[in-house]
Amino acid sequence: MKVLIVYAHQEAQSFNSALLARSVAELTAHGHAVRISDLYAMRFNPVATADDFAERRFPDRLQYDREQKHNFQRRSLSSDIVAEIEKLLWCDLLILQFPLWWFSVPAIMKGWIDRVFVNGAIYGSGRRYDTGGLDGRHAMVVTSTAAYPGMCAPDGLVGALDVILWPIQNGMLAYAGCKVLPPFVSWSVNFVDEATRQRYLDDYAERIRRIETTKPLFFHPLADFGAD
Amino acid sequence: MKVLIVYAHQEAQSFNSALLARSVAELTAHGHAVRISDLYAMRFNPVATADDFAERRFPDRLQYDREQKHNFQRRSLSSDIVAEIEKLLWCDLLILQFPLWWFSVPAIMKGWIDRVFVNGAIYGSGRRYDTGGLDGRHAMVVTSTAAYPGMCAPDGLVGALDVILWPIQNGMLAYAGCKVLPPFVSWSVNFVDEATRQRYLDDYAERIRRIETTKPLFFHPLADFGAD
Repeated sequence: MKVLIVYAHQEAQSFNSALLARSVAELTAHGHAVRISDLYAMRFNPVATADDFAERRFPDRLQYDREQKHNFQRRSLSSDIVAEIEKLLWCDLLILQFPLWWFSVPAIMKGWIDRVFVNGAIYGSGRRYDTGGLDGRHAMVVTSTAAYPGMCAPDGLVGALDVILWPIQNGMLAYAGCKVLPPFVSWSVNFVDEATRQRYLDDYAERIRRIETTKPLFFHPLADFGAD
Repeated sequence: MKVLIVYAHQEAQSFNSALLARSVAELTAHGHAVRISDLYAMRFNPVATADDFAERRFPDRLQYDREQKHNFQRRSLSSDIVAEIEKLLWCDLLILQFPLWWFSVPAIMKGWIDRVFVNGAIYGSGRRYDTGGLDGRHAMVVTSTAAYPGMCAPDGLVGALDVILWPIQNGMLAYAGCKVLPPFVSWSVNFVDEATRQRYLDDYAERIRRIETTKPLFFHPLADFGAD
């Protein structure tokens, strides 16, 4: 299996870095090919601007999504976007690994989605969900939290985790055509003891070993929706 | 009333730009003070790194939220963050205006939240929701979509809008202490006719006129939660 890990943590000494290393070791030991987009290390630019387009279909007024489509077709997107699209279309499994910040991905990862999930390649002209551009691929959220599990229960202080992750799992990954595997969550990483963090690493390794037989989350296929 | 509009659109000829201008005209006509953080025009840096901190409490390993608190207390945060915190604490009403991209805010606005909603000022040490650092303030999401309303119904193709906005309205704004006013949504702006867009502008002006008497959305106060 070909695995792309898009990774957003600044610190090489972090728990997230240890988790990344463990997953790479486990994946390669089982014969999977792994590529990593280490967004901070790459100094990935998350800001979507007109600079992303060498050509303009509508030079007078920037319509970002329409220029994405035009420039994807003309092969005139910014080279950093082209490189990420190539990795994305290469992979069978996309892992988004990030610390949960303000109930979402850090800005640098949101910008990777904004700029790389281009109209005309990943979605558009009615292609979405089971007809999305990433159809046939799997995806998984791997995240760490400050909150402990009870806070993310349906009656918890910050609300249910599946609702918090809905814009990511439904909105970014399923919409783009991926089958979404259940998320892997390391809870309260800064507040648990070393033995618990070690258990998280082992649990993640176990998830990776079972990755090819893990059942995706259910999202309604397009056929379940009427014209309205 | 003192109003801070944090605005994320690149294009001066856009509908969002017209909406911004209309709100500023309406607010100032009614005697409100308005400040704008025009994120693309400011070239706001959305990427949270160690460069945000002139001092380090933990020099060997970056723990971003702990350094936020330390540097806020020492007045050693990056000057662009300090300037935004000053505006944020100045305002009575915070408006986040953005096109809905991938079920969330554009990366440049997520980075404004990540970097400006600092630990020790906006949240932390148990301060959150009705004890959050922005307590006493109101906030409102003003967004535009490609989707039409039926797609964001509870049984709609992309899911209910309040679920899509939950991480923003509950997770960013209510968590930080704001009372959250109902969102103002301009539906399918690129696909409706000019008359409809004009109606959106008029509807928004009307919302602005009633802003001081608009009832906030309900979020559970801390007192509704038990210790677990």
